Amino acid sequence: MISLNDRLLHEDKPRRYAVGLDLGGTNLKYGIVSDRGEVIYQNVIPVFADHGRDHVLQTMVDAAYECVMFGRKESFEVEGIGVGCPGTIDSDRGISLGPTPHLPDWENAPIAEYISQKMNLPVFADNDANFMAFGEAMLGAGKQYKLVVGITLGTGVGGGIIINGNIFHGSSYNGAELGHTIVEAHGRPCGCGNQGCLEQYAGGKYIVKEALSAIARGDKSVLSSVENITPKTIFDFAQKNDTLCLNILEQMVFYLGAGLSSIVHVLNPDIIIIGGGLSEAGDAFVSRIHNEVIKRVMKPIKPKLQIVRAKLGNTAGLLGAGYYVLYKNRSK
Amino acid sequence: MISLNDRLLHEDKPRRYAVGLDLGGTNLKYGIVSDRGEVIYQNVIPVFADHGRDHVLQTMVDAAYECVMFGRKESFEVEGIGVGCPGTIDSDRGISLGPTPHLPDWENAPIAEYISQKMNLPVFADNDANFMAFGEAMLGAGKQYKLVVGITLGTGVGGGIIINGNIFHGSSYNGAELGHTIVEAHGRPCGCGNQGCLEQYAGGKYIVKEALSAIARGDKSVLSSVENITPKTIFDFAQKNDTLCLNILEQMVFYLGAGLSSIVHVLNPDIIIIGGGLSEAGDAFVSRIHNEVIKRVMKPIKPKLQIVRAKLGNTAGLLGAGYYVLYKNRSK
Repeated sequence: MISLNDRLLHEDKPRRYAVGLDLGGTNLKYGIVSDRGEVIYQNVIPVFADHGRDHVLQTMVDAAYECVMFGRKESFEVEGIGVGCPGTIDSDRGISLGPTPHLPDWENAPIAEYISQKMNLPVFADNDANFMAFGEAMLGAGKQYKLVVGITLGTGVGGGIIINGNIFHGSSYNGAELGHTIVEAHGRPCGCGNQGCLEQYAGGKYIVKEALSAIARGDKSVLSSVENITPKTIFDFAQKNDTLCLNILEQMVFYLGAGLSSIVHVLNPDIIIIGGGLSEAGDAFVSRIHNEVIKRVMKPIKPKLQIVRAKLGNTAGLLGAGYYVLYKNRSK
Repeated sequence: MISLNDRLLHEDKPRRYAVGLDLGGTNLKYGIVSDRGEVIYQNVIPVFADHGRDHVLQTMVDAAYECVMFGRKESFEVEGIGVGCPGTIDSDRGISLGPTPHLPDWENAPIAEYISQKMNLPVFADNDANFMAFGEAMLGAGKQYKLVVGITLGTGVGGGIIINGNIFHGSSYNGAELGHTIVEAHGRPCGCGNQGCLEQYAGGKYIVKEALSAIARGDKSVLSSVENITPKTIFDFAQKNDTLCLNILEQMVFYLGAGLSSIVHVLNPDIIIIGGGLSEAGDAFVSRIHNEVIKRVMKPIKPKLQIVRAKLGNTAGLLGAGYYVLYKNRSK
């Protein structure tokens, strides 16, 4: 069990602060996080990825500067900056190791060094799903647990693994690619080069694609009169008993059951936290995933495994990133 | 990297010794292991599981006693006893948590306590595949690596995960059930209650079952004239270009590629070590598995991931069990 002390709850000491940045393909969420897990200040600005890497890095510097200035106005200093980014991040050096769909020239981007030099503050960069999982593990739904798996259901399917308050990175920062566990060995080709990955059956982008193909095939659905189909449209019409939407949702839950049961049989976590945009479909959706996983996992695991909805909403990423800085420096 | 010191290579100090027991459904392999990773003495005796739990526990005590006596004859004492057993083992208390197919009354068996009381020595019990993976990680094919996954291809498919010299157990000793990652979400029902588990497509028992069904369906194969089909028969006739055997083997390799790529995308290990009886099919077989996994894993992982055949053969289990005792006590 993580002790109270480890969770920094020094109620008798003055608050400590850090900046958290959560970079997405279209915007940057950012804010100031305290060692009590509060978001003191937050904001969002658009990211123009097509303006190139330095532009994106400078956008992050501007956001961090805004936070530091806010702190000074309130008479406090921040200790450092945590930066969550898509893709594979060498978290020891703070460098992006590969391109990502929305940040094509992101390979070898010196994230930590760039921001640190401009801001004169320590910077920790990591994968965004890792920081979301860290946020939920330390401050959200996973607070009482040692071995936490976070799944983010968004456009794709991301993941993070937190063991005793440490982000698990694997041997080369490619651990916890949980959307790329296989559910159908002969299944759909995936952008990662593999086939049959969970993401292809449970990512928002892919369930929309499926709806569109079904309509093109002539399936009857209210969706055929909808101009811009989103995962939310599918969830909404499923609630209104549209057969196609119900089927797509059922299949998504079925495959999440399969993929998550594989992850459970590798890691045997205490808890799986379901976050990301699609988790906003609500508790009933998460409870269906829970039932599907429990059906599949080994008998001794069934009574112990928790599967719950994320608690921190869309601030999990910046909370995790900022809190990570304070947690890293906790002995100070 | 595990330091030389951690690997106990104190060439200037006197050797230290422990007993390693490796319990299977039909026999018990046992021996004495040194802190240099040598097997000083070894033997095998049959296990009569149908005589009941106490009989099996007493068989292990007898084996341990034989080892202690051998040591005394050679003028050394053993420090303790490591016991690898099938099934889920609470390694902190040394208790078996569930029955296993070959040891039906094994639930709650107080393995460590029983043997420790009779032998007056510390006893550490763990799952057999965990100790095999530990043996290979510390003394075999995984020696230079931090994050090691061991896969045992035998009747079923077992696994162990070693991180920085520690056996990874998960939150309730059910981690590393690597044969129960899913490869076909709608696939074959598995004894574990799930469906489409890797074990059903790559375990020795199941490839034999498949051969038998194919023959019953009328498939032409040299196997139809074989009385007792084993995995080895299938491997042998595949080498002689029997179409059925070639197909079964190809399918097995295909599914190992799928299952292991899922494991890689969760754990991102440095190395996967393929052991167990079926790995004796040889390096060409392991190299086919390697190619199949590399085909499937993400680009940045491809150049780094090692997939190799186990080095310690069928002593890996007792070596791992005995060496674990010495490693645990390494500060003494």
